[in-house]
Amino acid sequence: MLDFDATHLFAEKLDARDELAGFRQEFQISDPDLIYLDGNSLGRAPRQTIERVGQVVSQEWGKELIRGWNEGWYDAPHRVGEKIAQLIGAAPGQVIISDSTSINLFKLVIAALRACPGRTQIISDVLNFPSDLYILQGCIELLGRQHRLDLVPSDDGIIPDLNTLNGLIGSDTALVTLSQVVFKSGYKYDVPAITEKAHQAGGLVLWDLCHSVGAVPIELDAWGVDLAVGCTYKYLNGGPGSPAFLYVRKELQDQLSSPIWGWWGHKAPFTFDLNFSPEPGIGHFMVSSPPTLSMLAIEPAVELLLRAGISRLREKSVRQTDYLIELSDHYLRQLGFTLGTPRQSEWRGSHVSLRHPEGYRINRALIEAMALLPDFREPDNLRLGIAPIYTSYAQLWDAVQRIRRVVEGGIFKNYSVERLAVT
Amino acid sequence: MLDFDATHLFAEKLDARDELAGFRQEFQISDPDLIYLDGNSLGRAPRQTIERVGQVVSQEWGKELIRGWNEGWYDAPHRVGEKIAQLIGAAPGQVIISDSTSINLFKLVIAALRACPGRTQIISDVLNFPSDLYILQGCIELLGRQHRLDLVPSDDGIIPDLNTLNGLIGSDTALVTLSQVVFKSGYKYDVPAITEKAHQAGGLVLWDLCHSVGAVPIELDAWGVDLAVGCTYKYLNGGPGSPAFLYVRKELQDQLSSPIWGWWGHKAPFTFDLNFSPEPGIGHFMVSSPPTLSMLAIEPAVELLLRAGISRLREKSVRQTDYLIELSDHYLRQLGFTLGTPRQSEWRGSHVSLRHPEGYRINRALIEAMALLPDFREPDNLRLGIAPIYTSYAQLWDAVQRIRRVVEGGIFKNYSVERLAVT
Repeated sequence: MLDFDATHLFAEKLDARDELAGFRQEFQISDPDLIYLDGNSLGRAPRQTIERVGQVVSQEWGKELIRGWNEGWYDAPHRVGEKIAQLIGAAPGQVIISDSTSINLFKLVIAALRACPGRTQIISDVLNFPSDLYILQGCIELLGRQHRLDLVPSDDGIIPDLNTLNGLIGSDTALVTLSQVVFKSGYKYDVPAITEKAHQAGGLVLWDLCHSVGAVPIELDAWGVDLAVGCTYKYLNGGPGSPAFLYVRKELQDQLSSPIWGWWGHKAPFTFDLNFSPEPGIGHFMVSSPPTLSMLAIEPAVELLLRAGISRLREKSVRQTDYLIELSDHYLRQLGFTLGTPRQSEWRGSHVSLRHPEGYRINRALIEAMALLPDFREPDNLRLGIAPIYTSYAQLWDAVQRIRRVVEGGIFKNYSVERLAVT
Repeated sequence: MLDFDATHLFAEKLDARDELAGFRQEFQISDPDLIYLDGNSLGRAPRQTIERVGQVVSQEWGKELIRGWNEGWYDAPHRVGEKIAQLIGAAPGQVIISDSTSINLFKLVIAALRACPGRTQIISDVLNFPSDLYILQGCIELLGRQHRLDLVPSDDGIIPDLNTLNGLIGSDTALVTLSQVVFKSGYKYDVPAITEKAHQAGGLVLWDLCHSVGAVPIELDAWGVDLAVGCTYKYLNGGPGSPAFLYVRKELQDQLSSPIWGWWGHKAPFTFDLNFSPEPGIGHFMVSSPPTLSMLAIEPAVELLLRAGISRLREKSVRQTDYLIELSDHYLRQLGFTLGTPRQSEWRGSHVSLRHPEGYRINRALIEAMALLPDFREPDNLRLGIAPIYTSYAQLWDAVQRIRRVVEGGIFKNYSVERLAVT
């Protein structure tokens, strides 16, 4: 690694040495001036996906009609699931695509809680994506308020209080469920350590991989993880709202029961038996026909990531987040930005949050006037997502200059603090 | 209506008088010789949908990236829901697109049962799609086996025993849930009569519209229906596995609570509150980001149906199912086929089932050797689905001749009785 300097030339040197640089051309880049730092919210469209979806619609649905189910649609939840399994260290037979992250979380949380009778504690943290907390709250309500949700606090909104977490895990713990990488600060948990701690106490763990899959090395089998869920539209580039995946460790599959008994989880769906008989293994966590256009869009995108390789992606992601922090220290600190992300790369996913009291307006100005797309998360986080498969070092340098211009030039003052519906 | 005769010329006359005939050209027809009678399983692809999906992938996702959510994606569940509302007699604010039929059924069944404490009976029938029964069985298990599922029998597998149904409904009835049109025989229930009966007993009704929406007049508001679900990939032509819709009657929306607390059901999702606060109205039945490619594919298809108009579609559907039954009586009865569908059109949806002991092999032969795509439902139903928006009378005549050739010529004997995974 070269020693940091703050020039554009330095960014160019880093790009010249980037062995993944060629992957950028695998994505549709319509506007070369646009800097897209929101791949942790919605990844870019791979060219092959655009072609594949066109083929699915006009050739498969359009010509094959119902026969499409026998020609690659029906087994897609397993087939695409096995490709994702390779990104998360899961041996075959443990990952499927199904529904959304929230629905999968619901299925697995209910299944886990019912498998731990007598234990009443669920542990999560205040940094978790609120959606996950809502699902947990709904599960507690549904199961008759026998469980309580203990949320690990965070002093700085960046790092959870690990001492509290360790202190909470105990003989009453049914489930520890956290996001491997938290959505605001990008803090990355030590999954194997917490998993081991929970197991020692006799509890189960469920990891949400939405903000880590495709960007961070994950070894679910090796780490002994029980359950995991994740989306496919962030670093996996599967397309807006593309269906989610779930992982259930082999030994647990027949001990746990999904609360949603769907015909795609039946052992013989086309016999149309009147009674439900679950498919053994991972299959009974499926519910029904997946949204096939969105489902099949995931496949070429995951294949791209497999070609790039998670260890190379992580290596570049660490270099790029380090570099972005160095640039921020150099150019932005003096403008009132503070780092909202752990400084040490081992505690970090693939985005950098910069906090600023005017974060909301700065974000709007960047989007509307500067051709820079980060995103904003309340109350003051400007989130800069790095997708190493298509983000260049020069773009990070340019992004920092655009942020600087927006603040130094007061451009952000042209924008309202009133929040849009979707940010 | 002309008096039936069994000639091809007669079919041509009917086509010449068909005011909906022009709609066929709105669909991709790649192989004019192929007769597609499986639109009740997966509808054909509208040309506009193919164009629209291409635009969503390469223009919206590809170019607008995350901004797509602010430009027509985010409100799609409501916007497309309101278009479907026009097909099912629902005033605004009662229909959304969300998840799958099974997931929606799960949400609404749990909500309904929890709204009727003390009542323990759920009524459905043996003709219902088994998927619905599985969901009900799972709900009963989840709620601690306090409820029982009473299934109305059917002597002939065609028509449910309505006397038994009426006798079952009583003071212990929490929920009556049936398919308006049953998937095997095409029997069509008298929704307002059963709804009224259930209401008199103090119970709720939930109608599954999968096999009726887009083909049969539905007046949910006028009929006083409480809850409904339905898919969008059959007569609505939304594409394989396209997301489903749900209806909750206005007055019930804030009395019922979905068991799956998702962030798209939160009253202010982008404030990222740690606690769930449901959106008032229909919104809290949503869960999370919908699969947008599959979601947006529904919209042009529903617009086509609205243009054609449900009353005209129903009128043609009745004529076509009548005609197909007359052709079957004339040509097929002597070959061992019996009618598996009510003969009176008022008790029928938009498909005709023909039962034959060799149904499975006949179906395979038709698909593989005769360019005719019906489908098969155990044990002996050859299901001939009519989508009046793209099915012609001449195709029905040709279909009957192809069935005749397969049986008379013994062609079906070339095929195995062994069932494929997907049929």
